[in-house]
Amino acid sequence: MSLVVMVTLPPERAHDVARTLVQERLAGCVNVVGGVQSVYRWQGEIAEDPETMLLIKTSGEKYPELEARIKSLHPYEVPEIIALQFDRALPEFQAWLRESLEDRK
Amino acid sequence: MSLVVMVTLPPERAHDVARTLVQERLAGCVNVVGGVQSVYRWQGEIAEDPETMLLIKTSGEKYPELEARIKSLHPYEVPEIIALQFDRALPEFQAWLRESLEDRK
Amino acid sequence: MSLVVMVTLPPERAHDVARTLVQERLAGCVNVVGGVQSVYRWQGEIAEDPETMLLIKTSGEKYPELEARIKSLHPYEVPEIIALQFDRALPEFQAWLRESLEDRK
Repeated sequence: MSLVVMVTLPPERAHDVARTLVQERLAGCVNVVGGVQSVYRWQGEIAEDPETMLLIKTSGEKYPELEARIKSLHPYEVPEIIALQFDRALPEFQAWLRESLEDRK
Repeated sequence: MSLVVMVTLPPERAHDVARTLVQERLAGCVNVVGGVQSVYRWQGEIAEDPETMLLIKTSGEKYPELEARIKSLHPYEVPEIIALQFDRALPEFQAWLRESLEDRK
Repeated sequence: MSLVVMVTLPPERAHDVARTLVQERLAGCVNVVGGVQSVYRWQGEIAEDPETMLLIKTSGEKYPELEARIKSLHPYEVPEIIALQFDRALPEFQAWLRESLEDRK
């Protein structure tokens, strides 16, 4: 089973986190989407922040380790980490993704 | 069950709709993604419009009320409102989302 | 069953592919999201490319034909083509989407 994991980050941190996750084989590919404005409720008030969104492609098997790593890298106390399951995908892309996540010596 | 709800809007309306949905506790958090160009078929012709996308985090229980509210705020006759289910998420984020959606006195 | 299909492309190709898919009734609507930076592993190294993301709204029935068409239009050997299933959607939008995908004489 494969997943798209959505994470939002302060813009200045997004690129380094994306590279780290690919470097450590926790993600096969990360799309870094800039120019996001996030609106939320914090301590009873409506707050807004500019953010960057990561769309992280990984497997169900890697997810627990990925989630823990994002938590350790993320500056927020409660980061947004949401996983959506692929319904289908190009088979060659699925194969490439599995291979990208395999640990090598 | 939690949902990411995708909605596209004219850019000048997106920010106010996002704030309204959080203010009314129909969404815990909304990401406003600018710079979208939408291509579609309308009355037999290919049409294009600049739009802004909202990625709205909510619960299955709130969805019917959220959908009705977006319809009432949206300038199009047939707005795009699509909900995707979380497969998993950071437990602390899920707890924060539930709390953000609770009605308070 | 309806799908959101995520595809990433070189920015200069994205707009034409979006129009072609709508023109050929393989998609009811395509959102073209610019300003994406993709990070991935290629031949053992971390690589990065500017890309544009398409979010393609289609049906499960049309998916095989859509996937084949994207492969034929896409300049990469292994394009990213990922489909996520709608959990719910505005009924009028679902009806509009079905109608947009119907072949006409």
